[in-house]
Amino acid sequence: MHRQLREEKVFKDPVHNYIHVQDEIIWSLINTTEFQRLRRIRQLGTSYLTFHGAEHSRFSHSLGVYEITRRIISQFEQGKYPDWPRDERLVALCAALLHDLGHGPFSHSIEQAFQMDHEDWTCKILLGDSEVASVLRRLGDDFPAKVASVIRKDYDKPIVVNLVSSPLDADRMDYLLRDAYFTGVNYGTIDMDRILRMLRPFQGRVVVKESGMHAVEDYLMSRYQMYWQVYFHPVTRSSEIILRQILRRAKELYKSGHSFAFLPDPLPGLFKRELTVQEYLLLDEALIQTAFMQWRNEKDDLLSDLCSRFMDRKLYKYVETESLDKEMIEEIRHAFAKVGLNPDYDLEIDFPTDLPYDVFRPDGKFREKQILLLDRQDQLREISEVSDIVRSISGLHRGKFHLYFPDNKLTPVLDKLPQEIADLFQLQT
Amino acid sequence: MHRQLREEKVFKDPVHNYIHVQDEIIWSLINTTEFQRLRRIRQLGTSYLTFHGAEHSRFSHSLGVYEITRRIISQFEQGKYPDWPRDERLVALCAALLHDLGHGPFSHSIEQAFQMDHEDWTCKILLGDSEVASVLRRLGDDFPAKVASVIRKDYDKPIVVNLVSSPLDADRMDYLLRDAYFTGVNYGTIDMDRILRMLRPFQGRVVVKESGMHAVEDYLMSRYQMYWQVYFHPVTRSSEIILRQILRRAKELYKSGHSFAFLPDPLPGLFKRELTVQEYLLLDEALIQTAFMQWRNEKDDLLSDLCSRFMDRKLYKYVETESLDKEMIEEIRHAFAKVGLNPDYDLEIDFPTDLPYDVFRPDGKFREKQILLLDRQDQLREISEVSDIVRSISGLHRGKFHLYFPDNKLTPVLDKLPQEIADLFQLQT
Amino acid sequence: MHRQLREEKVFKDPVHNYIHVQDEIIWSLINTTEFQRLRRIRQLGTSYLTFHGAEHSRFSHSLGVYEITRRIISQFEQGKYPDWPRDERLVALCAALLHDLGHGPFSHSIEQAFQMDHEDWTCKILLGDSEVASVLRRLGDDFPAKVASVIRKDYDKPIVVNLVSSPLDADRMDYLLRDAYFTGVNYGTIDMDRILRMLRPFQGRVVVKESGMHAVEDYLMSRYQMYWQVYFHPVTRSSEIILRQILRRAKELYKSGHSFAFLPDPLPGLFKRELTVQEYLLLDEALIQTAFMQWRNEKDDLLSDLCSRFMDRKLYKYVETESLDKEMIEEIRHAFAKVGLNPDYDLEIDFPTDLPYDVFRPDGKFREKQILLLDRQDQLREISEVSDIVRSISGLHRGKFHLYFPDNKLTPVLDKLPQEIADLFQLQT
Amino acid sequence: MHRQLREEKVFKDPVHNYIHVQDEIIWSLINTTEFQRLRRIRQLGTSYLTFHGAEHSRFSHSLGVYEITRRIISQFEQGKYPDWPRDERLVALCAALLHDLGHGPFSHSIEQAFQMDHEDWTCKILLGDSEVASVLRRLGDDFPAKVASVIRKDYDKPIVVNLVSSPLDADRMDYLLRDAYFTGVNYGTIDMDRILRMLRPFQGRVVVKESGMHAVEDYLMSRYQMYWQVYFHPVTRSSEIILRQILRRAKELYKSGHSFAFLPDPLPGLFKRELTVQEYLLLDEALIQTAFMQWRNEKDDLLSDLCSRFMDRKLYKYVETESLDKEMIEEIRHAFAKVGLNPDYDLEIDFPTDLPYDVFRPDGKFREKQILLLDRQDQLREISEVSDIVRSISGLHRGKFHLYFPDNKLTPVLDKLPQEIADLFQLQT
Repeated sequence: MHRQLREEKVFKDPVHNYIHVQDEIIWSLINTTEFQRLRRIRQLGTSYLTFHGAEHSRFSHSLGVYEITRRIISQFEQGKYPDWPRDERLVALCAALLHDLGHGPFSHSIEQAFQMDHEDWTCKILLGDSEVASVLRRLGDDFPAKVASVIRKDYDKPIVVNLVSSPLDADRMDYLLRDAYFTGVNYGTIDMDRILRMLRPFQGRVVVKESGMHAVEDYLMSRYQMYWQVYFHPVTRSSEIILRQILRRAKELYKSGHSFAFLPDPLPGLFKRELTVQEYLLLDEALIQTAFMQWRNEKDDLLSDLCSRFMDRKLYKYVETESLDKEMIEEIRHAFAKVGLNPDYDLEIDFPTDLPYDVFRPDGKFREKQILLLDRQDQLREISEVSDIVRSISGLHRGKFHLYFPDNKLTPVLDKLPQEIADLFQLQT
Repeated sequence: MHRQLREEKVFKDPVHNYIHVQDEIIWSLINTTEFQRLRRIRQLGTSYLTFHGAEHSRFSHSLGVYEITRRIISQFEQGKYPDWPRDERLVALCAALLHDLGHGPFSHSIEQAFQMDHEDWTCKILLGDSEVASVLRRLGDDFPAKVASVIRKDYDKPIVVNLVSSPLDADRMDYLLRDAYFTGVNYGTIDMDRILRMLRPFQGRVVVKESGMHAVEDYLMSRYQMYWQVYFHPVTRSSEIILRQILRRAKELYKSGHSFAFLPDPLPGLFKRELTVQEYLLLDEALIQTAFMQWRNEKDDLLSDLCSRFMDRKLYKYVETESLDKEMIEEIRHAFAKVGLNPDYDLEIDFPTDLPYDVFRPDGKFREKQILLLDRQDQLREISEVSDIVRSISGLHRGKFHLYFPDNKLTPVLDKLPQEIADLFQLQT
Repeated sequence: MHRQLREEKVFKDPVHNYIHVQDEIIWSLINTTEFQRLRRIRQLGTSYLTFHGAEHSRFSHSLGVYEITRRIISQFEQGKYPDWPRDERLVALCAALLHDLGHGPFSHSIEQAFQMDHEDWTCKILLGDSEVASVLRRLGDDFPAKVASVIRKDYDKPIVVNLVSSPLDADRMDYLLRDAYFTGVNYGTIDMDRILRMLRPFQGRVVVKESGMHAVEDYLMSRYQMYWQVYFHPVTRSSEIILRQILRRAKELYKSGHSFAFLPDPLPGLFKRELTVQEYLLLDEALIQTAFMQWRNEKDDLLSDLCSRFMDRKLYKYVETESLDKEMIEEIRHAFAKVGLNPDYDLEIDFPTDLPYDVFRPDGKFREKQILLLDRQDQLREISEVSDIVRSISGLHRGKFHLYFPDNKLTPVLDKLPQEIADLFQLQT
Repeated sequence: MHRQLREEKVFKDPVHNYIHVQDEIIWSLINTTEFQRLRRIRQLGTSYLTFHGAEHSRFSHSLGVYEITRRIISQFEQGKYPDWPRDERLVALCAALLHDLGHGPFSHSIEQAFQMDHEDWTCKILLGDSEVASVLRRLGDDFPAKVASVIRKDYDKPIVVNLVSSPLDADRMDYLLRDAYFTGVNYGTIDMDRILRMLRPFQGRVVVKESGMHAVEDYLMSRYQMYWQVYFHPVTRSSEIILRQILRRAKELYKSGHSFAFLPDPLPGLFKRELTVQEYLLLDEALIQTAFMQWRNEKDDLLSDLCSRFMDRKLYKYVETESLDKEMIEEIRHAFAKVGLNPDYDLEIDFPTDLPYDVFRPDGKFREKQILLLDRQDQLREISEVSDIVRSISGLHRGKFHLYFPDNKLTPVLDKLPQEIADLFQLQT
């Protein structure tokens, strides 16, 4: 049964000043073991190795997403817009609060290394044997399934899905502001108050009043800058590469029967890809970092070296190149092998636009990924039809290939490589 | 040999905007394994359980202290003040950067539990077999000893000691600003630029020009507010209590021969109080948190319960009381035991002013803890002689006794306690 | 009749981000000629000569006071507190918006020079033949009288008076934040969100929940600092002195029949103290500054010199002294006259605490000037009973006497003055 | 002769925190009557009628431009770059400080109405009989001419000209930051510290290190947003139109021999376009506003109505249209005249890109208007060659035609206009 708190509770938050909690269910969800675990998962993964302030957790971010969603809904209610289904308030708030619940430590890297998906895990936790599930069931036996369905984007009220996940959703607004705040990079400041005031529920979607266009333009430009300045920063990419190599190497060793001096639960389950929900919830960044610290003494030079690199921030260097085809890559790998380097570990190629982050691109097919403007005659138009600047940004993809490698191993053999390849790896100092 | 970097390097910092590194030695020190370890020690210990933004590390803080010191020295050099010994620049910068190097995980609690002192460890690392020591020796075999001596406050140039450690030092200015920024509490904003411009080297001390008095007043008031709003916050105190109880219980179990399922190095050494420098450096907050996570399944109900409390943030509740004497404490402990509670773990008494934080208090005996104003006639006066507001603040000590206890254990037996004691523990809701 | 705007209107505001207008009457009031006139009256009078950013107008401030009041009332309505009379919303909002309507140019100085009172003028405008009055009458013929009565503090609903005028009112909160923002002085930052959340309507007063005490302490400390750093700044005092001397001299000349080359309406009426409301509304800072510019060429050396001083910021210098009695003042005046100086213009004595600004002082007699805390048992306590820091600040009065004089006139005759007096006027450089 | 101040002086500034003055000549220049006059000229003209915070003066802005220039030069000196001519420091600082000295009240409007040019007036003041000129001559008889020559862009050291006037100069950086601060619009925040660190003197120009490209992109995007959100805001344009109409009408009346009740010096000279430097310096916004206040009672309905509109902010309304040709304009004017409207005053057509503000556009012909990047091989490239985002913005021109008109006059006759024209003027509400 839904109950309001006798007195509103607040969390002091550097980004939104205060997070306001008015419903008992929200308060109870925040106090579950599964939600508290998010304190031990950083919002920006390894970015703290590039921007030392970026130590903030998914716990903070999740509270922020909840708070923005709360403000949007509160405005929808005050405006008495008929297209907002008032009964959906709690479903939407819970989904907003819990949308990142299934994230693992260093999420993007670990998902890639072990073919997992945090959304799946979120739903498993919501629907499984968890404190969160039991709190949600207070609102009805089908309530956990409703929340999960919003997160899986197949809830039968599309406006709730759209509110929680769209190119202008609370998730994106919070992370832009929060990541800008904690990194200290000021590209991410957006006029959130104005954007919120311009949102309208309209025919199963959250759209933007036309007069809010400039604020949205500014938001998209900020996002564009944050992607290139922060999220795709080559030093961060380098640390992610080391991290993935560690996980890959440990998995290889495990499969080959290597006996680890340090391998507490649930790491064996992770390597076997047989994790229960309860085991999954034991995974956090403290455990991963502790494992890496201990593995510095593991009897495998490669693993131990990689762990030292990660913990001591002795990352791979990189060079940039405009173009690189499969053939060229094979040539480089071949040349590396020939001079005694290990092309599987001593070379990584990265092309930033491959990343699972979304730079806004309007696209007729995926209307749910579009931002729609509502004009005075209640007509909708996709923003890039109206805004030259959005159209300009949308077409851009300015990625370059980055080649990462261990400087200390490559430099001694550089002159044994074919000239063309050696030139490519000449560090720009 | 001292070398300048070919090109200045910078770190983006949310508090100081940029940290500027101009000397090769500073750059090398930052890249040592010992300094990178500070990324895994939070600046504010368990405060993140009260203020979720407070996840920032001693790594960030140490860079900040270095940066402020660099700015002060740079201004001293530009002003060509005869009382500043220019040759001491690098000693001062290194001491500023490294002053927190010996901090352990959850420093105040662990020091109390194991009678350690972070300053000792800092000096051991500086003088022992460490990367930091070997970098420092590039400037001379006696250079590590010089830096250690500044940190131990017995260096033979008192102005360097005073610059690095005084009531108006770079350490305090950085933590006020940084803790305010990351908690989101705006009490800590100070006009640092103005304070820095008002500092003068004068007869072996850093003093303040008289016209800077108001800025210093404001700084002391900010500090006062931060102590009471952030550093002494009862929820933080509660989490520190749980933390210390865990460490105490684990030590007891270890000494009694309990066989831990999870006890990697260097934890046994910690319990035996036989840590080498290399072992000490393995201690970080990732390890402590991982141990606590694993100990939730340890075969000791008390330890396992305490660990769950800490990880899930199910902290002890507290009540306040104005006065409490030894006799009363004994009565309470006795009554607790009588109803089946464990007075050693189910009751903790705290009086904030006992804490090892310094609230500024002028004091004739400890002139190094005073802030001195320099007037136009080059006379020095202690600030509280001149400033009414500082005098007012200095006299204050507004602590109350706080009694912490596990709500879920106490409530069921509350009515079996003597009335007076039961009244005391009535939670104010 | 009261009508809501079809769509909320907003003003972009640097302090509150947005000012929200929801009622047609507020929108209409803002658009009256009398309210627009406030754009030409600076909030901080001559302070812009000390802090060049302080050019902000009473128009901005009035909008800010309205906005804070709107937020407080909105929170009272949401909390459904029985002690808040909901019908009083518009009276309170109008009084908040219009409370400064009667301010003249360089208000404090002009009021002193011509024995006027801005509150009287506010009421005359509200009740007279003005656009504002005609807009207010839309809500009833007695509505202007109600608003005036709130401003005169004799309205029959004391809580409305208390909301608009008390030591913690919207007026003070806005000016602290706004003056800090525009001067650039960061002493004035307060956690307004928290204070607002802690306010409660209670028995005809606005009181503060006890848990908001620290936020109020911080607010009082900020105010204390702003008074001494900004409002009482000696350079500002010097410019106010020149301004008053100009007005005094012009009045003397006018009364003595001097024929001014420039004396447009309503200046003759001002000198005669026979201003109608319509004439009073012609007074603004543009007119005063234009008169001063033109009077630089007026055929009276004293007036012309003073005007040049004001416009070119060639202010009087000052010296400080701890004590000064009537006898000493007479001696100085006598000595000044003896060496050919004019003691009525070449000497001004100022003691800051005489100023019409309020530093908070708890005082049994004037309970409406007190800040009351509401504890969990619904008991009220005056804040300085509970807060040591407020008690400390309240007792302080650290004013010194300041003697202002024209440097260029005094210096040449300094050695002809008695030694004691000459010493007093020795400029500290 | 050049002298350093015995002790640095500072101005508190909300944008740069402190403005530092180290040279006696700068201090003396600030204290001249001509520089103090800039306090009475707003930086953003009539924008305060749209953004009420925008009351800041050219005095503040000029100090800001000086401060940024001082920081750039200080960095050039510290870097010991051979391409920076160290002897030019004071010329550059004086030119930076004084570059806006010749601005009149509501500069853009008055220049347009009376065919004046503020740069000419700056040079006349620098070279004429002024306090500024006499201060400058302390550094040599040719020093005023040198400063004027920098401002006229024909100084023989091109790097000084480029430093003071280029697409990335101190002027533009200060106004972006300052206008954003005072309007409260947060589009204008730029990472100035980073940009400054990336500037290099190189072959007679100030160029940007390639690694600073993203900061410059961000700066150009901010500028783009500020132009469209603030500088070209249609409400501001409307107020400028009224202002120009007032000046036009007053000039017409003057020429036709109308006898003004209020026309103090130097207004007759302004109308006759016969102003001496001394008369020009009497012009300020106080005088213009006072004239408008007095002219509300002038015996010409058109002038008196326009003045009331401006003072009471009863501005013209506007409609937008995508296209408009000469023929159509003539048709509208004709139709207006036919229904009794005055097409010379009741209709104004505006196309924002016609404005004298500069949106950055790379252009082969005007290399001094380009931003050049310096790569590691000391090669220069124009930024839009390298940056997709700059190229995208540069091509855009999204202006629409705006038609301004007095709502209260047009509405009553709207249905007498031809349908097509009536449709065009239908207000969007």
